Amino acid sequence: MQLDNIDKQAFLESDWQQRPRLIKRGLNNVDLIEPEILAGLAMEEGVDARVIEHRNQRWSVSHGPFEEYESLGEQDWTLLVQAVNEWMPDVHALLEAFRFLPEWRIDDVMVSFSVEGGGVGPHVDEYDVFIVQGAGRRHWRVGERQATTPTYPCEDLKQISDPFNAVIDEVLEPGDILYIPAGCPHDGIALEPCLNYSVGFRAPNQAEWLAQLADMALQTERLKQRYTDPKLSSSTPSHVVTNGQLEQVKQLLKSALDADEFNELILRAQSMSKRPLPEPELPMMAEQIPALLTMNNAMLVRTPGARLLKQADTAHYFANGERFTVTEGAEMLAQKIAELTDEVPMSELAPYCQDMCSQELLAWLVNQGVIELLID
Amino acid sequence: MQLDNIDKQAFLESDWQQRPRLIKRGLNNVDLIEPEILAGLAMEEGVDARVIEHRNQRWSVSHGPFEEYESLGEQDWTLLVQAVNEWMPDVHALLEAFRFLPEWRIDDVMVSFSVEGGGVGPHVDEYDVFIVQGAGRRHWRVGERQATTPTYPCEDLKQISDPFNAVIDEVLEPGDILYIPAGCPHDGIALEPCLNYSVGFRAPNQAEWLAQLADMALQTERLKQRYTDPKLSSSTPSHVVTNGQLEQVKQLLKSALDADEFNELILRAQSMSKRPLPEPELPMMAEQIPALLTMNNAMLVRTPGARLLKQADTAHYFANGERFTVTEGAEMLAQKIAELTDEVPMSELAPYCQDMCSQELLAWLVNQGVIELLID
Ligand SMILES: O=C(O)CCC(=O)C(=O)O
Ligand SMILES: O=C(O)CCC(=O)C(=O)O
Ligand SMILES: [Co+2]
Ligand SMILES: [Co+2]
Repeated sequence: MQLDNIDKQAFLESDWQQRPRLIKRGLNNVDLIEPEILAGLAMEEGVDARVIEHRNQRWSVSHGPFEEYESLGEQDWTLLVQAVNEWMPDVHALLEAFRFLPEWRIDDVMVSFSVEGGGVGPHVDEYDVFIVQGAGRRHWRVGERQATTPTYPCEDLKQISDPFNAVIDEVLEPGDILYIPAGCPHDGIALEPCLNYSVGFRAPNQAEWLAQLADMALQTERLKQRYTDPKLSSSTPSHVVTNGQLEQVKQLLKSALDADEFNELILRAQSMSKRPLPEPELPMMAEQIPALLTMNNAMLVRTPGARLLKQADTAHYFANGERFTVTEGAEMLAQKIAELTDEVPMSELAPYCQDMCSQELLAWLVNQGVIELLID
Repeated sequence: MQLDNIDKQAFLESDWQQRPRLIKRGLNNVDLIEPEILAGLAMEEGVDARVIEHRNQRWSVSHGPFEEYESLGEQDWTLLVQAVNEWMPDVHALLEAFRFLPEWRIDDVMVSFSVEGGGVGPHVDEYDVFIVQGAGRRHWRVGERQATTPTYPCEDLKQISDPFNAVIDEVLEPGDILYIPAGCPHDGIALEPCLNYSVGFRAPNQAEWLAQLADMALQTERLKQRYTDPKLSSSTPSHVVTNGQLEQVKQLLKSALDADEFNELILRAQSMSKRPLPEPELPMMAEQIPALLTMNNAMLVRTPGARLLKQADTAHYFANGERFTVTEGAEMLAQKIAELTDEVPMSELAPYCQDMCSQELLAWLVNQGVIELLID
């Protein structure tokens, strides 16, 4: 899948995280899921789904799993399902089109099905999003980044209370794409039954970063340098925390940020997937790889939602919170798998998999749940 | 309670966190708890207690609550009970002697009862500690800070494997105090039934600080600035995390460290007690205070383990993770209560409690569980 009608470099320079953009006919084929399949998915336990209704000027939200949709009628509601890419390979494939952006920033694909009049109301998000128009037509309005006042028309629904000036005010048709930076108000009202795919990006805030990195440091037993006092004076009352002590805490944390292992913690944390990855029943051994390479019914599939990241200018790859350091001989294979979006016959990897380190890398990736081995 | 035979300022300058010290006859009265009471406490649910035995060159650890001690015999075991100060006001009073050190650094008082030959073996701790000799005599050896090799003679018991040179090698008698900085090896063997009080200090490591501060930031909705990308290039492979992106994360976190609210988070975090504080059945209202001040059977007691801290050069007090800003009129009362180690008749506070802000402070402290109001 490939984005059309956009100069990616120019987009990165002038639009990304700066201003909303409409990309007309950005995608060619947007038939990625049938509404019935989406509705079925929202009936499953463990799938995060909501229905938002807007009737007689009243908003309401209900949470899945759902049992039926008939009672909703034919107007003024929308069904939203989170992380559909983790369940549906065709929806996951949509992410290929956005691989000009950093993989670790991509969160997931939310899919909505709306009937005429359906929408979630005017709101802002804290995250960047591309909204791809699937089937049907929807009227979208988007404003520049601006101060807004939040309002909660009902529980679990955050909107904005004031009208906003739209810089984009268009009826989207299948294949059109909106780019909406964090903080820009937007509102979409369906003109007919329609599907939207939201490719969401994540951007942790400072507190969330600290929490993730602390978890990772505790798990991996890093950043173990302890606080020590600055020079103390016996005349300071015991209950007073001095500026010198506060400085000392902050110096200790600054030296953590500057430590080499801090980069490693960032990469470990960002290589975590949102949900646990599948573990093979038996761990794969590097020694098993040569035989598998010759089987023509063995396929490798990248697990949707699994991340495989490389730290620039190093030989370190990260997945599932773990690190693997490749030797030169395995670099080609690592890159090939990092760029793998679909499935690939095992035999196709044979040329990259002749040395022991490549075989160990492949076994490691299977054991971490980043790729799955299918034999049919 | 008062430390003797020590020049506190000199100690802070030359010894604290630097080298072990023996303070002969540092305390006058060390009759703080009877062995039978300690043994009884270790029979209670919720009390953290261990028995360590050393018999026929084999070490073993068992965990409380205990049902009996007869089977242990009269030699070669020691009973250790954590945080005894939170249960026993007389033991808590020992902390008064250490108020020339910052209150937020004090962790708790562990008490051990050992019979002849009893001890935990040679080891190092990650924390500074003062070990007060209570009843009985014990042979203590302490070395300078040095590299040591950990060894685990049994589960839950960390010792060091190599012999160490002792710079202190003495038989401690009641009232003698050892100061042992983090990282200094030490070993104490009881010559007869004896009690030891360990005043422990806490010094979180970098990872622990990050975890505590992240928790506090998430709870109080601080540090909400989000990550944004540096200039991106469409030629960077999606799976590569660039140095520019890593720098951006670290800049975001550095700006968190430099934010004013970061000091506040440190104080909030350090003002938390180890266990939940008692909540009054009904919240106290400032309006109730004037009447209470006139009652001569009303007492205020500082809750053992509750912290009340002041940020230097500000009017901010912190307790139980919360902040209270005092006006000038309430500063005297705040200081009085911060320095309160024992109980005080309510009427004694009357002179400091005439204005509304003082009354609000007092009500707040009762509601946070820092002080308890007793009426008999
Ligand atoms: O599809 C929808 O109705 C909501 C889309 C949206 O607002 C978003 O993804 O930010
Ligand atoms: O009292 C004991 O037996 C152990 C004391 C000790 O090693 C300590 O508090 O660090
Ligand atoms: Co939105
Ligand atoms: Co010790």
